[in-house]
Amino acid sequence: MSASPAAGRPRNPDVDRRVARAAVELFGSQGWAGFSVEAVARRAGVGKASIYLRWPSKEALLVGALAERVPVVADVDTGTLRGDLVRLARQLLDMHLGPSGRAFERMGLDAPQLPGVAERWERHREAQVRAARAMIRRGIDRGEIAADTPVTLLLDTLCGGVALHVSSTPERLRPNIDVEDYAERLVTFLLRSVE
Amino acid sequence: MSASPAAGRPRNPDVDRRVARAAVELFGSQGWAGFSVEAVARRAGVGKASIYLRWPSKEALLVGALAERVPVVADVDTGTLRGDLVRLARQLLDMHLGPSGRAFERMGLDAPQLPGVAERWERHREAQVRAARAMIRRGIDRGEIAADTPVTLLLDTLCGGVALHVSSTPERLRPNIDVEDYAERLVTFLLRSVE
Repeated sequence: MSASPAAGRPRNPDVDRRVARAAVELFGSQGWAGFSVEAVARRAGVGKASIYLRWPSKEALLVGALAERVPVVADVDTGTLRGDLVRLARQLLDMHLGPSGRAFERMGLDAPQLPGVAERWERHREAQVRAARAMIRRGIDRGEIAADTPVTLLLDTLCGGVALHVSSTPERLRPNIDVEDYAERLVTFLLRSVE
Repeated sequence: MSASPAAGRPRNPDVDRRVARAAVELFGSQGWAGFSVEAVARRAGVGKASIYLRWPSKEALLVGALAERVPVVADVDTGTLRGDLVRLARQLLDMHLGPSGRAFERMGLDAPQLPGVAERWERHREAQVRAARAMIRRGIDRGEIAADTPVTLLLDTLCGGVALHVSSTPERLRPNIDVEDYAERLVTFLLRSVE
Protein backbone atom coordinates (compact mmCIF):
# COMPACT_ATOMS: atom_id res chain seq x y z
CA MET A 1 0.00 0.00 0.00
CA SER A 2 3.01 2.32 0.30
CA ALA A 3 4.10 4.58 -2.54
CA SER A 4 6.71 3.08 -4.86
CA PRO A 5 10.30 3.88 -4.03
CA ALA A 6 12.24 5.90 -6.57
CA ALA A 7 13.28 3.37 -9.22
CA GLY A 8 16.79 2.01 -9.09
CA ARG A 9 17.83 3.70 -5.85
CA PRO A 10 19.47 1.32 -3.39
CA ARG A 11 17.74 1.52 0.01
CA ASN A 12 18.56 0.45 3.51
CA PRO A 13 15.59 -1.40 5.05
CA ASP A 14 16.74 -0.56 8.56
CA VAL A 15 16.80 3.17 7.78
CA ASP A 16 13.38 2.87 6.13
CA ARG A 17 11.96 1.24 9.24
CA ARG A 18 13.43 3.84 11.58
CA VAL A 19 12.12 6.67 9.42
CA ALA A 20 8.61 5.18 9.23
CA ARG A 21 8.54 4.62 12.97
CA ALA A 22 9.79 8.12 13.76
CA ALA A 23 7.27 9.70 11.37
CA VAL A 24 4.34 7.83 12.89
CA GLU A 25 5.38 8.53 16.48
CA LEU A 26 5.98 12.21 15.78
CA PHE A 27 2.63 12.70 14.06
CA GLY A 28 0.86 10.72 16.79
CA SER A 29 2.25 12.89 19.56
CA GLN A 30 2.56 16.31 17.88
CA GLY A 31 0.07 16.26 15.04
CA TRP A 32 0.62 18.00 11.73
CA ALA A 33 1.74 21.26 13.37
CA GLY A 34 4.87 19.54 14.68
CA PHE A 35 5.48 17.36 11.63
CA SER A 36 8.43 18.13 9.30
CA VAL A 37 11.00 16.13 7.36
CA GLU A 38 13.67 17.72 9.54
CA ALA A 39 12.02 16.66 12.80
CA VAL A 40 11.48 13.11 11.49
CA ALA A 41 15.12 12.90 10.38
CA ARG A 42 16.32 14.07 13.80
CA ARG A 43 14.11 11.59 15.61
CA ALA A 44 15.18 8.71 13.34
CA GLY A 45 18.86 9.68 13.55
CA VAL A 46 19.26 9.95 9.76
CA GLY A 47 19.99 12.77 7.36
CA LYS A 48 17.17 14.60 5.59
CA ALA A 49 18.62 13.39 2.27
CA SER A 50 17.90 9.77 3.25
CA ILE A 51 14.26 10.67 3.61
CA TYR A 52 14.03 12.66 0.36
CA LEU A 53 15.65 9.71 -1.42
CA ARG A 54 12.43 7.85 -0.86
CA TRP A 55 9.70 10.39 -0.17
CA PRO A 56 9.26 13.51 -2.28
CA SER A 57 7.41 15.54 0.38
CA LYS A 58 6.35 15.48 4.01
CA GLU A 59 2.80 14.66 2.88
CA ALA A 60 4.03 11.55 1.04
CA LEU A 61 6.26 10.64 4.00
CA LEU A 62 3.42 10.79 6.50
CA VAL A 63 0.93 8.73 4.51
CA GLY A 64 3.57 6.24 3.31
CA ALA A 65 5.00 5.73 6.79
CA LEU A 66 1.60 5.20 8.37
CA ALA A 67 0.48 2.88 5.55
CA GLU A 68 3.58 0.75 6.22
CA ARG A 69 2.76 0.42 9.88
CA VAL A 70 -0.93 -0.46 9.76
CA PRO A 71 -2.12 -4.00 8.92
CA VAL A 72 -2.32 -4.64 5.17
CA VAL A 73 -5.73 -6.25 4.74
CA ALA A 74 -4.85 -7.69 1.32
CA ASP A 75 -2.17 -9.87 2.96
CA VAL A 76 -4.70 -11.70 5.18
CA ASP A 77 -5.87 -14.97 3.60
CA THR A 78 -5.88 -17.90 6.04
CA GLY A 79 -8.28 -20.09 4.08
CA THR A 80 -11.35 -19.51 6.27
CA LEU A 81 -13.37 -16.38 6.92
CA ARG A 82 -13.25 -16.97 10.67
CA GLY A 83 -9.46 -17.23 10.50
CA ASP A 84 -9.19 -14.10 8.36
CA LEU A 85 -11.44 -12.04 10.64
CA VAL A 86 -9.66 -13.16 13.82
CA ARG A 87 -6.29 -12.27 12.29
CA LEU A 88 -7.59 -8.89 11.11
CA ALA A 89 -9.09 -8.16 14.54
CA ARG A 90 -5.80 -9.10 16.25
CA GLN A 91 -3.77 -6.91 13.90
CA LEU A 92 -6.14 -3.97 14.41
CA LEU A 93 -6.00 -4.40 18.20
CA ASP A 94 -2.20 -4.46 18.12
CA MET A 95 -2.20 -1.37 15.93
CA HIS A 96 -4.61 0.62 18.14
CA LEU A 97 -2.70 -0.44 21.27
CA GLY A 98 0.72 0.33 19.80
CA PRO A 99 2.53 3.54 18.83
CA SER A 100 0.72 3.75 15.48
CA GLY A 101 -2.71 3.90 17.13
CA ARG A 102 -2.66 7.59 17.96
CA ALA A 103 -1.29 8.47 14.51
CA PHE A 104 -4.02 6.42 12.83
CA GLU A 105 -6.78 8.10 14.84
CA ARG A 106 -5.29 11.54 14.32
CA MET A 107 -5.09 10.87 10.59
CA GLY A 108 -8.79 10.05 10.43
CA LEU A 109 -9.52 13.37 12.11
CA ASP A 110 -7.02 15.63 10.37
CA ALA A 111 -6.40 14.14 6.91
CA PRO A 112 -9.47 15.72 5.27
CA GLN A 113 -8.11 19.17 6.18
CA LEU A 114 -4.59 18.55 4.84
CA PRO A 115 -4.14 18.97 1.08
CA GLY A 116 -1.67 16.42 -0.28
CA VAL A 117 -2.42 14.13 2.64
CA ALA A 118 -6.18 13.85 2.11
CA GLU A 119 -6.08 12.23 -1.35
CA ARG A 120 -3.18 9.92 -0.50
CA TRP A 121 -4.83 8.69 2.71
CA GLU A 122 -8.18 8.30 0.94
CA ARG A 123 -6.56 6.09 -1.72
CA HIS A 124 -4.93 3.95 0.98
CA ARG A 125 -8.22 3.68 2.87
CA GLU A 126 -10.18 2.72 -0.24
CA ALA A 127 -7.71 -0.06 -1.11
CA GLN A 128 -8.05 -1.43 2.44
CA VAL A 129 -11.85 -1.38 2.23
CA ARG A 130 -11.78 -3.17 -1.14
CA ALA A 131 -9.49 -5.89 0.28
CA ALA A 132 -11.72 -6.32 3.34
CA ARG A 133 -14.84 -6.62 1.20
CA ALA A 134 -13.08 -9.22 -0.97
CA MET A 135 -12.21 -11.16 2.22
CA ILE A 136 -15.90 -11.34 3.18
CA ARG A 137 -16.95 -12.30 -0.34
CA ARG A 138 -14.48 -15.22 -0.31
CA GLY A 139 -16.29 -16.45 2.82
CA ILE A 140 -19.66 -16.14 1.06
CA ASP A 141 -18.29 -18.00 -1.99
CA ARG A 142 -17.02 -20.82 0.26
CA GLY A 143 -20.48 -21.06 1.86
CA GLU A 144 -19.20 -20.08 5.32
CA ILE A 145 -21.73 -17.28 5.76
CA ALA A 146 -25.10 -16.36 4.27
CA ALA A 147 -25.13 -14.98 0.72
CA ASP A 148 -27.11 -11.95 1.94
CA THR A 149 -24.60 -11.08 4.67
CA PRO A 150 -24.53 -7.30 5.15
CA VAL A 151 -20.86 -6.79 4.25
CA THR A 152 -20.63 -3.15 5.31
CA LEU A 153 -22.24 -3.82 8.70
CA LEU A 154 -19.94 -6.76 9.37
CA LEU A 155 -16.85 -4.66 8.62
CA ASP A 156 -18.11 -1.54 10.45
CA THR A 157 -18.81 -3.53 13.61
CA LEU A 158 -15.59 -5.55 13.46
CA CYS A 159 -13.20 -2.65 12.82
CA GLY A 160 -15.23 -0.13 14.82
CA GLY A 161 -15.72 -2.55 17.72
CA VAL A 162 -11.95 -3.01 18.04
CA ALA A 163 -11.29 0.74 17.88
CA LEU A 164 -13.97 1.53 20.45
CA HIS A 165 -12.84 -1.22 22.80
CA VAL A 166 -9.37 0.34 22.93
CA SER A 167 -10.48 3.97 23.07
CA SER A 168 -13.01 3.27 25.84
CA THR A 169 -10.37 1.54 27.98
CA PRO A 170 -8.46 4.06 30.12
CA GLU A 171 -4.78 4.13 29.07
CA ARG A 172 -3.54 2.67 32.36
CA LEU A 173 -5.74 -0.42 31.83
CA ARG A 174 -4.89 -1.05 28.16
CA PRO A 175 -1.98 -3.39 28.93
CA ASN A 176 -4.60 -5.70 30.50
CA ILE A 177 -6.47 -6.16 27.21
CA ASP A 178 -6.13 -9.81 26.11
CA VAL A 179 -5.76 -9.38 22.34
CA GLU A 180 -6.18 -13.06 21.40
CA ASP A 181 -9.21 -13.52 23.62
CA TYR A 182 -10.99 -10.34 22.56
CA ALA A 183 -10.40 -11.04 18.83
CA GLU A 184 -11.83 -14.58 19.14
CA ARG A 185 -14.88 -13.48 21.13
CA LEU A 186 -15.60 -10.52 18.85
CA VAL A 187 -15.52 -12.65 15.70
CA THR A 188 -17.62 -15.41 17.27
CA PHE A 189 -20.19 -12.81 18.35
CA LEU A 190 -20.42 -11.21 14.89
CA LEU A 191 -20.39 -14.45 12.87
CA ARG A 192 -23.27 -15.84 14.94
CA SER A 193 -25.42 -13.21 13.26
CA VAL A 194 -24.64 -14.36 9.71
CA GLU A 195 -23.73 -18.07 9.88
CA MET B 1 -23.79 14.82 33.09
CA SER B 2 -22.66 18.46 33.06
CA ALA B 3 -21.01 20.06 36.07
CA SER B 4 -23.41 21.81 38.42
CA PRO B 5 -23.92 25.50 37.82
CA ALA B 6 -22.87 27.86 40.57
CA ALA B 7 -25.70 27.73 43.12
CA GLY B 8 -28.26 30.52 43.07
CA ARG B 9 -26.92 32.32 39.99
CA PRO B 10 -29.63 33.14 37.46
CA ARG B 11 -28.72 31.85 33.99
CA ASN B 12 -29.89 32.49 30.48
CA PRO B 13 -30.49 29.18 28.66
CA ASP B 14 -29.96 30.82 25.28
CA VAL B 15 -26.54 32.14 26.34
CA ASP B 16 -25.68 28.70 27.77
CA ARG B 17 -26.55 27.04 24.47
CA ARG B 18 -24.55 29.52 22.40
CA VAL B 19 -21.54 29.12 24.68
CA ALA B 20 -21.69 25.30 24.58
CA ARG B 21 -22.01 25.31 20.81
CA ALA B 22 -19.16 27.78 20.35
CA ALA B 23 -16.91 25.80 22.70
CA VAL B 24 -17.55 22.51 20.89
CA GLU B 25 -17.09 24.00 17.42
CA LEU B 26 -13.90 25.80 18.42
CA PHE B 27 -12.32 22.72 19.99
CA GLY B 28 -13.41 20.56 17.04
CA SER B 29 -11.74 22.84 14.51
CA GLN B 30 -8.74 24.21 16.44
CA GLY B 31 -8.03 21.64 19.13
CA TRP B 32 -6.77 22.54 22.59
CA ALA B 33 -4.06 24.85 21.22
CA GLY B 34 -6.71 27.27 19.97
CA PHE B 35 -9.11 26.85 22.88
CA SER B 36 -9.56 29.68 25.41
CA VAL B 37 -12.43 31.26 27.34
CA GLU B 38 -11.79 34.47 25.43
CA ALA B 39 -12.03 32.79 22.01
CA VAL B 40 -15.21 30.95 23.04
CA ALA B 41 -16.75 34.20 24.33
CA ARG B 42 -15.94 35.97 21.07
CA ARG B 43 -17.39 33.15 18.96
CA ALA B 44 -20.55 32.97 21.09
CA GLY B 45 -20.95 36.76 21.14
CA VAL B 46 -21.02 36.96 24.94
CA GLY B 47 -18.73 38.48 27.56
CA LYS B 48 -16.11 36.35 29.32
CA ALA B 49 -17.91 37.06 32.62
CA SER B 50 -21.00 35.19 31.36
CA ILE B 51 -18.84 32.11 30.88
CA TYR B 52 -17.05 32.34 34.22
CA LEU B 53 -20.47 32.70 35.89
CA ARG B 54 -21.03 29.07 35.03
CA TRP B 55 -17.64 27.47 34.38
CA PRO B 56 -14.68 28.01 36.68
CA SER B 57 -12.03 27.19 34.06
CA LYS B 58 -11.52 26.44 30.39
CA GLU B 59 -11.09 22.76 31.27
CA ALA B 60 -14.52 22.67 32.96
CA LEU B 61 -16.02 24.66 30.06
CA LEU B 62 -14.74 22.23 27.43
CA VAL B 63 -15.88 19.04 29.13
CA GLY B 64 -19.19 20.52 30.29
CA ALA B 65 -20.02 21.94 26.86
CA LEU B 66 -19.23 18.70 25.06
CA ALA B 67 -21.12 16.61 27.65
CA GLU B 68 -24.18 18.80 27.00
CA ARG B 69 -24.03 18.21 23.28
CA VAL B 70 -23.54 14.43 23.13
CA PRO B 71 -26.44 12.01 23.64
CA VAL B 72 -27.16 11.31 27.32
CA VAL B 73 -27.46 7.54 27.45
CA ALA B 74 -29.29 7.60 30.80
CA ASP B 75 -32.20 9.46 29.15
CA VAL B 76 -32.89 6.61 26.68
CA ASP B 77 -35.61 4.25 27.95
CA THR B 78 -38.22 3.39 25.32
CA GLY B 79 -39.50 0.21 27.00
CA THR B 80 -37.75 -2.28 24.70
CA LEU B 81 -34.08 -3.01 24.17
CA ARG B 82 -34.49 -2.83 20.40
CA GLY B 83 -36.10 0.60 20.74
CA ASP B 84 -33.38 1.79 23.11
CA LEU B 85 -30.54 0.59 20.87
CA VAL B 86 -32.06 2.09 17.72
CA ARG B 87 -32.51 5.44 19.48
CA LEU B 88 -28.96 5.33 20.83
CA ALA B 89 -27.57 4.45 17.39
CA ARG B 90 -29.54 7.30 15.78
CA GLN B 91 -28.34 9.80 18.39
CA LEU B 92 -24.73 8.67 17.98
CA LEU B 93 -24.99 8.92 14.18
CA ASP B 94 -26.42 12.44 14.44
CA MET B 95 -23.64 13.37 16.85
CA HIS B 96 -20.82 12.00 14.67
CA LEU B 97 -22.32 13.62 11.56
CA GLY B 98 -22.89 16.99 13.27
CA PRO B 99 -20.61 19.75 14.56
CA SER B 100 -19.93 17.89 17.83
CA GLY B 101 -18.48 14.85 16.03
CA ARG B 102 -15.01 16.27 15.48
CA ALA B 103 -14.85 17.61 19.04
CA PHE B 104 -15.87 14.22 20.42
CA GLU B 105 -13.22 12.37 18.40
CA ARG B 106 -10.57 14.95 19.25
CA MET B 107 -11.46 14.63 22.92
CA GLY B 108 -10.91 10.88 22.85
CA LEU B 109 -7.46 11.48 21.38
CA ASP B 110 -6.33 14.49 23.38
CA ALA B 111 -8.10 14.30 26.76
CA PRO B 112 -5.61 11.87 28.37
CA GLN B 113 -2.83 14.43 27.76
CA LEU B 114 -4.73 17.39 29.22
CA PRO B 115 -4.67 17.68 33.01
CA GLY B 116 -7.98 18.98 34.33
CA VAL B 117 -9.73 17.70 31.20
CA ALA B 118 -8.69 14.04 31.52
CA GLU B 119 -10.39 13.31 34.85
CA ARG B 120 -13.54 15.27 33.99
CA TRP B 121 -13.94 13.52 30.63
CA GLU B 122 -13.22 10.13 32.17
CA ARG B 123 -15.99 10.67 34.74
CA HIS B 124 -18.41 11.64 31.99
CA ARG B 125 -17.40 8.60 29.92
CA GLU B 126 -17.76 6.20 32.84
CA ALA B 127 -21.27 7.46 33.62
CA GLN B 128 -22.25 6.92 29.98
CA VAL B 129 -20.86 3.37 29.99
CA ARG B 130 -22.73 2.56 33.23
CA ALA B 131 -25.99 3.84 31.74
CA ALA B 132 -25.46 1.83 28.55
CA ARG B 133 -24.74 -1.36 30.50
CA ALA B 134 -27.90 -0.77 32.55
CA MET B 135 -29.86 -0.42 29.28
CA ILE B 136 -28.66 -3.85 28.13
CA ARG B 137 -29.36 -5.42 31.51
CA ARG B 138 -32.95 -4.15 31.38
CA GLY B 139 -33.29 -6.05 28.09
CA ILE B 140 -31.90 -9.20 29.71
CA ASP B 141 -34.28 -8.81 32.69
CA ARG B 142 -37.25 -8.45 30.32
CA GLY B 143 -36.15 -11.65 28.52
CA GLU B 144 -35.53 -9.87 25.22
CA ILE B 145 -32.00 -11.22 24.85
CA ALA B 146 -30.01 -14.14 26.23
CA ALA B 147 -28.88 -13.93 29.87
CA ASP B 148 -25.29 -14.63 28.77
CA THR B 149 -25.24 -11.78 26.24
CA PRO B 150 -21.71 -10.34 26.05
CA VAL B 151 -22.60 -6.81 27.16
CA THR B 152 -19.24 -5.23 26.37
CA LEU B 153 -19.12 -6.72 22.86
CA LEU B 154 -22.65 -5.56 22.10
CA LEU B 155 -21.83 -1.99 23.15
CA ASP B 156 -18.39 -1.94 21.49
CA THR B 157 -19.84 -3.07 18.17
CA LEU B 158 -22.89 -0.77 18.33
CA CYS B 159 -21.06 2.43 19.30
CA GLY B 160 -17.88 1.55 17.37
CA GLY B 161 -19.82 0.46 14.28
CA VAL B 162 -21.58 3.83 14.13
CA ALA B 163 -18.33 5.77 14.59
CA LEU B 164 -16.51 3.73 11.95
CA HIS B 165 -19.37 3.99 9.48
CA VAL B 166 -19.14 7.78 9.63
CA SER B 167 -15.35 8.03 9.69
CA SER B 168 -14.97 5.63 6.76
CA THR B 169 -17.41 7.61 4.63
CA PRO B 170 -15.65 10.46 2.78
CA GLU B 171 -16.94 13.83 4.02
CA ARG B 172 -18.58 14.71 0.69
CA LEU B 173 -20.71 11.54 0.88
CA ARG B 174 -21.78 11.84 4.54
CA PRO B 175 -24.97 13.81 3.75
CA ASN B 176 -26.10 10.65 1.89
CA ILE B 177 -26.02 8.50 5.05
CA ASP B 178 -29.59 7.46 5.89
CA VAL B 179 -29.52 7.68 9.70
CA GLU B 180 -32.84 5.91 10.33
CA ASP B 181 -32.09 3.08 7.94
CA TYR B 182 -28.53 2.46 9.14
CA ALA B 183 -29.58 2.50 12.83
CA GLU B 184 -32.35 -0.05 12.19
CA ARG B 185 -30.14 -2.37 10.16
CA LEU B 186 -27.24 -2.16 12.59
CA VAL B 187 -29.42 -3.07 15.58
CA THR B 188 -31.15 -5.89 13.71
CA PHE B 189 -27.75 -7.29 12.69
CA LEU B 190 -26.36 -7.19 16.25
CA LEU B 191 -29.47 -8.45 18.03
CA ARG B 192 -29.64 -11.47 15.72
CA SER B 193 -26.51 -12.67 17.48
CA VAL B 194 -28.03 -12.61 20.98
CA GLU B 195 -31.80 -13.07 20.57
